[in-house]
Amino acid sequence: MSELLSNTIGMIKPLDKGVMAQAQARQDMLTKPQGSLGRLEELSIQLAGIQAKPIPQIRHKAIITMAGDHGVVAEKVGNWPQEVTAQMVYNFLGGGAGINVITRHVGIRIIVVDMGVASELAPNPHLLSRKVAPGTKNIAIGAAMTEEQAVTAIETGIEIVKDEVAKGLDIVGTGDMGIGNTTPSAAICAVITGKPVAEVTGRGTGITDEQLTHKVEVITRALAVNHPDPKQPLTVLAKIGGFEIGGLAGVMLGAAAHRIPVVIDGFISGAAALIATALAPELKDYLIAAHLSAESGHRLLLEHLGLKPLLTLDMRLGEGTGAALGIFLVEASARLLAEMSTFAEAEVSEKEEQ
Amino acid sequence: MSELLSNTIGMIKPLDKGVMAQAQARQDMLTKPQGSLGRLEELSIQLAGIQAKPIPQIRHKAIITMAGDHGVVAEKVGNWPQEVTAQMVYNFLGGGAGINVITRHVGIRIIVVDMGVASELAPNPHLLSRKVAPGTKNIAIGAAMTEEQAVTAIETGIEIVKDEVAKGLDIVGTGDMGIGNTTPSAAICAVITGKPVAEVTGRGTGITDEQLTHKVEVITRALAVNHPDPKQPLTVLAKIGGFEIGGLAGVMLGAAAHRIPVVIDGFISGAAALIATALAPELKDYLIAAHLSAESGHRLLLEHLGLKPLLTLDMRLGEGTGAALGIFLVEASARLLAEMSTFAEAEVSEKEEQ
Repeated sequence: MSELLSNTIGMIKPLDKGVMAQAQARQDMLTKPQGSLGRLEELSIQLAGIQAKPIPQIRHKAIITMAGDHGVVAEKVGNWPQEVTAQMVYNFLGGGAGINVITRHVGIRIIVVDMGVASELAPNPHLLSRKVAPGTKNIAIGAAMTEEQAVTAIETGIEIVKDEVAKGLDIVGTGDMGIGNTTPSAAICAVITGKPVAEVTGRGTGITDEQLTHKVEVITRALAVNHPDPKQPLTVLAKIGGFEIGGLAGVMLGAAAHRIPVVIDGFISGAAALIATALAPELKDYLIAAHLSAESGHRLLLEHLGLKPLLTLDMRLGEGTGAALGIFLVEASARLLAEMSTFAEAEVSEKEEQ
Repeated sequence: MSELLSNTIGMIKPLDKGVMAQAQARQDMLTKPQGSLGRLEELSIQLAGIQAKPIPQIRHKAIITMAGDHGVVAEKVGNWPQEVTAQMVYNFLGGGAGINVITRHVGIRIIVVDMGVASELAPNPHLLSRKVAPGTKNIAIGAAMTEEQAVTAIETGIEIVKDEVAKGLDIVGTGDMGIGNTTPSAAICAVITGKPVAEVTGRGTGITDEQLTHKVEVITRALAVNHPDPKQPLTVLAKIGGFEIGGLAGVMLGAAAHRIPVVIDGFISGAAALIATALAPELKDYLIAAHLSAESGHRLLLEHLGLKPLLTLDMRLGEGTGAALGIFLVEASARLLAEMSTFAEAEVSEKEEQ
């Protein structure tokens, strides 16, 4: 393992339990029945433990949306032409995609990264060009990338998040764009969770029953050809992963190393989280699952991670759209803890003892 | 029925199906797989139908939080002293309650209304004093209020929302404060849904098993004493309701009459919606359920209304906190429909035909 990667993993520490107890004590003094803000209370306490601050703050918010292409599209696993990956990157840069609208709504900055789009993208001041290679190779016939490329992808994510930390960053959300990327994500999910391929494979952007059967067959073939070992997460990424998936795993590791909470989006971000938490189990406490995707394997994936989604809106767009909505809720939880009056401050009587 | 009430009900029209079809057509041209924004797409189309605009807009947002006291607290149905209702009203006016933090976070104005707090409240420029009476009577031994008071409560809600429309209002959320108000709400829920009292009665702000048994017994007695007829919603409100519940029913009716979407909060707002939709079944299409409350009867209540909650965060605070978060999501849905680029605008290729 490279030095940057192993150092980053080494920097990920357990949450600060003492500070979490302080945050819980404050929650219990606020003018509401104890626990009545439900998951918003839990989130605020998790945040306190992550930031190691009894009253955590969320001011600087970012979504990192990473794009990559996938050689497995040669197997016709979906219905969208590969050129859409690049076209959607331009759409992100032009401000017209779903993620642009939601980040504007929530007040989040967006970082768009070319991790491995198949075509050459025109230079743009708002695009981070970090292309590891122009798309992965077809996992149905061999490895997606070399182990060296897998490490490069993860390290790219670590470095991008480090640059963002320097600009000011209190929370980060993950997003993806990549035609065909539910296929490697399902493959990773099958390997790491140990679930049957058919149980973790979904319809992506919308395929027929027949196409779904074919997709399961392609993934089964990819696993047979590559026989990835779930105990070797870097090798899993290299054999059946994607550049944006590796990059997002790096974002998660890098954020946790800087005690920054990570709001993960849907199925592709979840696959990245499977790789990242296999590398660094302590990372789990830094993750917040934004939503339950309509992609069918996502529920099992989140169960494996031990994460409960905040939202269930039948979304399956990716890009970070779910994560951006999740960041809004996390910010609400922090503001509630910070800004609500205590019973004493507001001169409100407390619950009577029974 | 009074003239204002019957006129208001008469003003509630079906959603505009033609405009909804236009909104759906636009959704299908936006740069995403069709349906991939899930419930956010559905919401935008409902909004279009409500506002009768193919691209609906949400600029002016309000939460109307209504407070009232309940004579049934004499039966010791909860653990909080009645004075907390008034104290929390002052907390709302001081900006320190949960609803204040969330409305600031979402950019929503809040209207605090005394519909029937038991004590005299100090005048405050930000408090609407519309006290129908200083608390309801004890429903375990007789009617909560007269039929005249029930009509006054509803009409007060209608008039308040009308005043807000004059100031500019594109969406409204409902909120409540009233020590003891899960008891009348559960009673209303039992009567209107026809479910057994034990199934719709929850722990409110947190009571023991023994207290829950007692609460069910009190509600059962209230129904035996008052024998409300579910076909007579005004009488149900008068016999076993509350002033804030009536007021919120009026807000819902008034908003729908002005083609304004209503985001309903938790169990108490839900009880108000049961009364309001019993009076005007067309109202249902104007309602959006913000969240599934942790209060146990809420699921059955929403099923009866045919509404699917947007959020499940185990919240049970009331005040409009869930509704305010829901308004954020509705606004997101409107912005997505309005601001996302179409495939043609962004020069993104569409899905290939199979």
